[in-house]
Amino acid sequence: MRKKIRAIQYGVGPIGAALVRLMREKQAIEIIGAIDTDPAKAGRDLGEVAGAADTPWGIPVSATTDLLNEGADIVVHSTSSLLPGVADQLLACLAAESCVVSTCEELAYPYRKYPQLAAQLDAEAKSWGVALVGTGVNPGFVMDKLVLTLSAGVQRIDSVRVLRIVDAAERRLPLQKKVGAGLSAAEFRERVAAGEIKHHGLPESVAMVSDGLDLGVDAIDEAIEPMIAAADVRTEFLEVPAGQVAGVHQIARGTAHGHEKIYMELQMFVGAKLPGDTIELRGAPNLTLTIPGGTHGDLATIAIVVNSIPAILAAPAGLRTSADLPMCFFPPAAKP
Amino acid sequence: MRKKIRAIQYGVGPIGAALVRLMREKQAIEIIGAIDTDPAKAGRDLGEVAGAADTPWGIPVSATTDLLNEGADIVVHSTSSLLPGVADQLLACLAAESCVVSTCEELAYPYRKYPQLAAQLDAEAKSWGVALVGTGVNPGFVMDKLVLTLSAGVQRIDSVRVLRIVDAAERRLPLQKKVGAGLSAAEFRERVAAGEIKHHGLPESVAMVSDGLDLGVDAIDEAIEPMIAAADVRTEFLEVPAGQVAGVHQIARGTAHGHEKIYMELQMFVGAKLPGDTIELRGAPNLTLTIPGGTHGDLATIAIVVNSIPAILAAPAGLRTSADLPMCFFPPAAKP
Repeated sequence: MRKKIRAIQYGVGPIGAALVRLMREKQAIEIIGAIDTDPAKAGRDLGEVAGAADTPWGIPVSATTDLLNEGADIVVHSTSSLLPGVADQLLACLAAESCVVSTCEELAYPYRKYPQLAAQLDAEAKSWGVALVGTGVNPGFVMDKLVLTLSAGVQRIDSVRVLRIVDAAERRLPLQKKVGAGLSAAEFRERVAAGEIKHHGLPESVAMVSDGLDLGVDAIDEAIEPMIAAADVRTEFLEVPAGQVAGVHQIARGTAHGHEKIYMELQMFVGAKLPGDTIELRGAPNLTLTIPGGTHGDLATIAIVVNSIPAILAAPAGLRTSADLPMCFFPPAAKP
Repeated sequence: MRKKIRAIQYGVGPIGAALVRLMREKQAIEIIGAIDTDPAKAGRDLGEVAGAADTPWGIPVSATTDLLNEGADIVVHSTSSLLPGVADQLLACLAAESCVVSTCEELAYPYRKYPQLAAQLDAEAKSWGVALVGTGVNPGFVMDKLVLTLSAGVQRIDSVRVLRIVDAAERRLPLQKKVGAGLSAAEFRERVAAGEIKHHGLPESVAMVSDGLDLGVDAIDEAIEPMIAAADVRTEFLEVPAGQVAGVHQIARGTAHGHEKIYMELQMFVGAKLPGDTIELRGAPNLTLTIPGGTHGDLATIAIVVNSIPAILAAPAGLRTSADLPMCFFPPAAKP
């Protein structure tokens, strides 16, 4: 019998907590520890911190990264959306000869924004013989991997459009606040200017799709606008009067020599009537894919990260992306 | 500069002809020859046989398999749906140290129906250091690969349903005849009994999905019924009066200990009003994917086979399936 996959969870926020609960269901995985610097979590039982039903797990949350020295097979990393701030965390995981799956949106396809950091992570991973990937529902799946997979069915591609509409009313309060629900339009713009309101990952998806399909995108621009509530909206957590901001409306465009090749639109607001994901490939033939209701942001990200563990363990050493990995459900009874 | 991918087309029927026309658009590919035993084709220019616009190509169609001795990097194989009849053809390709992508439906996932043949092909491929795969739109993509890719977005899977509705009126005459359009119900059943009417590949898709998702399917049954025209249908090629057969209605079920885990339904008939592909994953969360209008059988199969060439060349030696390969569009200007 082969040994189990020894896993460490790095970051036990709401997503990290859900990640360990799902990992706990996989017979092939043994969670050997978790890292979180929050004093309210450090030293406590991981199962308890994660809100699991079968506590205690007998696994303490560690406040320091010394735990990485245990040399886990995989570190599941979920601490931040921005790559520069977590690069040292990732490098420490690699130096411990652990593969990494991270929810860091900017790691999903870092080659354009951070070419040096991407090269460094790739070189370090190769030098330690391990692989890392940033993934999740978006970036990592619905606006890029699924686009690339669908593209196998067409003979020619001229352009790509992706529309993702998320009803933030079905999400956590932090997500509802993060999209600006309840603000005035002026407040929204201030927060956007301060970098406090933004879904990270659209330019990463545009770049991944352009490179995968050879669409030659040489410029990517992104706009963030408020989505104004047309009528009063009430969620479990807050109320948005008509005329106030219901959420965020982001559009990223990838152009080649000034011609639009890739258009990606994300609407994430409370009260969205028709949530769903739509991918349109224009070419020969045209091909459209829809996910009515959409892929639930948190649930799908947690699924995708845990489901990616076997693929990243099997991948060649280096920095990988969702585009490289054959993504699939990770059966709970699968052998290690 | 790297050398081009040297390709041989094995079988120049309607699908083979379209395959070489698409391969011709790829700068990374050099078509070095084609094999077809039809005396009406052998000796003629491949471009002419394939109905290309830019004839002559200066590439003759060869009547014999001696051409395989040229040791192409890839043989694109399109001669039959049934594996036993083409096994020797495939083995000859492998012995020439060529990778193979085949449209043979039964090769897409041969492990249940032909375990010995599958093992032999896998062993031979490994001994020659090459890889082979059977793929196409169905089996190979819309009822299996896309199901597995979508499954990356869910945390638990209980069962899978796939419905594919194809309007045969938009397809070639041989396809319209193959689905029985215009027959009486009695004639249809006779032809089914004679093995003349059947779309091959549903059990292969059921098996691929069951194994990929660990759904434990221990029995697969398949039913083939006529789809009766409710009203007169007229296509470019034929007329079907109301009450006659419009096409085929096939259902494959995969059960585990008697419980249905996978249901796949294929309706392929002239006059289908709502063609499209629908995948439903039941689990946590449920996830539904639709391709309104559907993936065009011929166009998508041709795309998928040619688009799979880079992936099979990069794959480890042995018998591979769509489940193993990261499927994606093959850009025409891609480097070899």
